[in-house]
Amino acid sequence: MQLEVVNTGSELLLGQTLNTHLGYFAEQLQPLGVPVTRAQIVPDGPLIEAAIRAALARSEVVLVTGGLGPTSDDVTRDLVAKMLDAPLEFQPELLDKIYAYFARRKIVPSDLTRAQAFVPRGATVLPNNHGSAPGLWLQRDGRHVFCLPGPPRELRPMFENHTLPVLKKIFAGTPPLTVQVLRVYGIGESSVQERVEPAVRAQVADRAGLDIGYCARPGEVDVRFVAADRDLVNRAAALTRELLGDAVYADGDGTLEQAVIGSAVARGKTIATAESCTGGLVAHLLTNVPGASAVLQRGWVAYSNQAKMDELNVSGETLQQHGAVSAECAREMALGALTVSGCDLAIALTGLAGPGGGTAEQPVGTLFAGLAWRGADSHPRVETQHRLLLPNRADFKHTAAQFALNWLRLKLVEKI
Amino acid sequence: MQLEVVNTGSELLLGQTLNTHLGYFAEQLQPLGVPVTRAQIVPDGPLIEAAIRAALARSEVVLVTGGLGPTSDDVTRDLVAKMLDAPLEFQPELLDKIYAYFARRKIVPSDLTRAQAFVPRGATVLPNNHGSAPGLWLQRDGRHVFCLPGPPRELRPMFENHTLPVLKKIFAGTPPLTVQVLRVYGIGESSVQERVEPAVRAQVADRAGLDIGYCARPGEVDVRFVAADRDLVNRAAALTRELLGDAVYADGDGTLEQAVIGSAVARGKTIATAESCTGGLVAHLLTNVPGASAVLQRGWVAYSNQAKMDELNVSGETLQQHGAVSAECAREMALGALTVSGCDLAIALTGLAGPGGGTAEQPVGTLFAGLAWRGADSHPRVETQHRLLLPNRADFKHTAAQFALNWLRLKLVEKI
Repeated sequence: MQLEVVNTGSELLLGQTLNTHLGYFAEQLQPLGVPVTRAQIVPDGPLIEAAIRAALARSEVVLVTGGLGPTSDDVTRDLVAKMLDAPLEFQPELLDKIYAYFARRKIVPSDLTRAQAFVPRGATVLPNNHGSAPGLWLQRDGRHVFCLPGPPRELRPMFENHTLPVLKKIFAGTPPLTVQVLRVYGIGESSVQERVEPAVRAQVADRAGLDIGYCARPGEVDVRFVAADRDLVNRAAALTRELLGDAVYADGDGTLEQAVIGSAVARGKTIATAESCTGGLVAHLLTNVPGASAVLQRGWVAYSNQAKMDELNVSGETLQQHGAVSAECAREMALGALTVSGCDLAIALTGLAGPGGGTAEQPVGTLFAGLAWRGADSHPRVETQHRLLLPNRADFKHTAAQFALNWLRLKLVEKI
Repeated sequence: MQLEVVNTGSELLLGQTLNTHLGYFAEQLQPLGVPVTRAQIVPDGPLIEAAIRAALARSEVVLVTGGLGPTSDDVTRDLVAKMLDAPLEFQPELLDKIYAYFARRKIVPSDLTRAQAFVPRGATVLPNNHGSAPGLWLQRDGRHVFCLPGPPRELRPMFENHTLPVLKKIFAGTPPLTVQVLRVYGIGESSVQERVEPAVRAQVADRAGLDIGYCARPGEVDVRFVAADRDLVNRAAALTRELLGDAVYADGDGTLEQAVIGSAVARGKTIATAESCTGGLVAHLLTNVPGASAVLQRGWVAYSNQAKMDELNVSGETLQQHGAVSAECAREMALGALTVSGCDLAIALTGLAGPGGGTAEQPVGTLFAGLAWRGADSHPRVETQHRLLLPNRADFKHTAAQFALNWLRLKLVEKI
């Protein structure tokens, strides 16, 4: 039994919208042991039909996203009805529900909304509690098509409440696959493979028993183990943790910021951030984690020199002698943030995100980071580090923030 | 002539990695008038062959991403060589180049690297200046397959420097399509269509001459015009701007933060941020814009009550009487940020991002925002607004930040 996905929407091919559906489906389907075997992305229009036909020829279940909205480019409903010879029928009670949704949101529905109350004959309506477009479940010859709305905040509750339960019945009896991902910071992709794969193959399982995959991102690598036998996956993951040590920062979809907040909560430590070049990204990432308020007390975006002096007590002399992008400035920012906030740790970042401002001595991508904490005697301690990161503004901010979070994570593991 | 994409990589189907290639290709190909007609996403392994075969049967050009790395799951090179009957040949000078890349980065290459110096007979190597995996361009029967590396920072320079010039020759003579997107804040998708489409159809062009599409995101809608005739697209966009007024905040891939920084630079205004519930996201977004340092002087992540009092002079009485999530607190945060920073505008956000902390009176999703600025007499002025936003932590932070940026944008248009 196979499941595949057809994502519809010109915006997915025109570059305006990232397709987040695939990752979401993968996570949701993993406990069922059902991988997404492939996906097609097609623009709004007649190609949707060809894509669904191709998917249905290969797979028992096809998840179709998008094209259920009220506007003229939303054609999935009509195409599926035509393909499966199921004429559209108006359902007045469905229109009432759609109108009730708008009434709750205090929105006056547009006349176009009416189109969403037409349902292919024999289809089951999947309720949408977060938008006006109902989903559809159609069956023919033992194959299933689920049409789901494009916006993730409408699709996700509909999938979890009204689609997954049906899929569980369809795939009942499928032995679940175990997937485990370990996230590694600071070691390159091929070095990770060289350190992990020979040992895992020798001590845990050969190629047939265990699938090993790698995915590299700037500064990071994911190692992925997949097998029907949960024990093999667990043993491979345990061996990898042993081989790579502290470089492994998370299981699965864990993030560096979750690791930091988790350790800090466990140890009762508070954190302050003092950001120049990352402009608030470190604080943003930390506060994405529920419960961050017990850890992150305050942060500064000290973008101007005046802000560094006013808020973090960086001395004018330091700025004049060494410049804002210097180890000395990072040190004073970290100490200032620690002292002013009264927190247990403070991380400071100053650097050149570009595109302007680089020199031969200090190219764009230069980062100075400072980490201050209280020692056993509660006196402040501080360290600084210097890195040359990627010279593209977005990549620089991202890799600088990852560097800061990883440093906080490692410092929290030391018994400071 | 058609072009389609095959994205390979189990991580794209397993939920660990977002596929950003499609949007990138779309932007790059637009000036050539070449849309991506469809895309397939397949896991590492034998399905890659079926996907490339299907694509080649329909399209003259196929862009394949991923699977060129050195690890055992990187199989694209081998599969393409087999498919096109082009045996792999070792190219010692290519290995030298790969080793030179590692030497520049001061990295000792792994033994696995050698696999990347094997090239299918007759293929043209596309140099990779940002990684070890060379790209490949293969031709057969007037059709073209380009194999490009998966990591965006390797793929993008290779595409721009070594693939686009070839594609320009292949697609020479294709009349360019004009695509224009207008980004709209604060009006729902079907209301946008009702206000725009009848007028554009009546005054500019019918369905055959002009394609109109819509894409909704939380709080926002993109309206997209596509036509071979640039003049029609421009006239449709101009009419839409007239009909929707200030709600249109950008062309194309412009963002609210770019609009804010652009207006502020043009008017010589400086901005400070005082964030509680958004945790630094507004500052992060503003500092994503090159040149933001002329505008964003400083920001605070005032997460704890103590931070709000210490840094922004919020009174203890206000916090006690009204709580941190209140119009009064937002007002004092904004005024405090304005006064302490000396900036021309200050935006403040306080609210409940969840998941915990909600009550019947103040559910998760509650936002209070304050905007302070200096009037003509240079005395501080302040306004507050209250919204109920999406009750999911990530969506809440995102929509609250968008709200703040939009408010700054509109305030900068008023002649404050």
